[in-house]
Amino acid sequence: MVINKESLTDQVYSMLKKKILNREVELGEQLNTRKIAAEHDISLMPVRDALRRLANEDLVENKPRVGFFVKNFSEAEVNDILEVRKMHELYCLKNYFTEIDKEKIAELKNGFQNGNKEYFSSYDTSLHKEIIFASQNEYLIDSYLKMINHYTMLFSYLNYKRSETSRLEHVDLIDSILEENIEKACSILYRHLDRVKIAEDAEMKKSE
Amino acid sequence: MVINKESLTDQVYSMLKKKILNREVELGEQLNTRKIAAEHDISLMPVRDALRRLANEDLVENKPRVGFFVKNFSEAEVNDILEVRKMHELYCLKNYFTEIDKEKIAELKNGFQNGNKEYFSSYDTSLHKEIIFASQNEYLIDSYLKMINHYTMLFSYLNYKRSETSRLEHVDLIDSILEENIEKACSILYRHLDRVKIAEDAEMKKSE
Repeated sequence: MVINKESLTDQVYSMLKKKILNREVELGEQLNTRKIAAEHDISLMPVRDALRRLANEDLVENKPRVGFFVKNFSEAEVNDILEVRKMHELYCLKNYFTEIDKEKIAELKNGFQNGNKEYFSSYDTSLHKEIIFASQNEYLIDSYLKMINHYTMLFSYLNYKRSETSRLEHVDLIDSILEENIEKACSILYRHLDRVKIAEDAEMKKSE
Repeated sequence: MVINKESLTDQVYSMLKKKILNREVELGEQLNTRKIAAEHDISLMPVRDALRRLANEDLVENKPRVGFFVKNFSEAEVNDILEVRKMHELYCLKNYFTEIDKEKIAELKNGFQNGNKEYFSSYDTSLHKEIIFASQNEYLIDSYLKMINHYTMLFSYLNYKRSETSRLEHVDLIDSILEENIEKACSILYRHLDRVKIAEDAEMKKSE
């Protein structure tokens, strides 16, 4: 049997990416190439290629002659990432307000109000992404999606609890978009993203 | 003599990056690994490693089983990049206005007014970078610098002539920063970046 090496790399890449984003591995943890290869009974090459690809996406750090590590973040980096998120979302909400897909937004409202709490995180991500997608700027969208992966890693690390307040803020944000009230929408998003920052700062301190 | 392979890769990387950013190679042009290796009398490995590093920075495209090519841009991508530049600069000017290094800005004004026209492009880049650096957000700065490399490639490609108007706009922008007039500075920057867009659109059409 001929093994398709590219597809093997793809599989290892997806498996590791999922583990990193779901925080089944710790931030800063070493990803041992030999161990991963042995666990899956495959050669070192596809594992190294997958890790290099993850390093290109900044999810993994490649320390020459030491090995591969899950990316870790300093407190300064956490705040930097949160600010870059804010810059992207506020820019798109303000400049592409009328381009937001109202049908999708209305569906998400239903999710926030009646949906299973388990899926809160996916409604949350979808809502923020819809605001970004409204720009139809592929370059901006790529840069946002790359950043949001880092955010996802941080978020689970911070073990931040999505509160009832946050759920209601999302419903308010959706309503103001559906009502075409741009000032209200911008001020809710601004407050919401600022509150996340404060909540996460608090969590950071607790976990120290 | 033992050859330091990493430093060989570094050298090829810097040489190619300079060529790309100075447009000594065309956008979309194939970078032939064997030819580069032969020209510099080195093995293929450091050339491939350098090209992969440039691909990670999105300056080069790696088409599997075909080869490496200098990145090329569609008209839509050009506009996307210009908008992302605008988002970064306007955000930083607005939110970090008082943090801009006034001493450096004053030096640049002198450059714009009395400096050699040859260096116009370096004053221009420096001024816009100073606005971004004021944020002290490493994540934002990295994302800006990566984007500005693409912009530099485009700019030389578009063969856009820096006009007297543009020189005066920069002097006005510097003055409004030194006078601490945030509204004036934002409106000048907004107009300036929009004008660049229009000028470049015009150039695009001419070069078609």
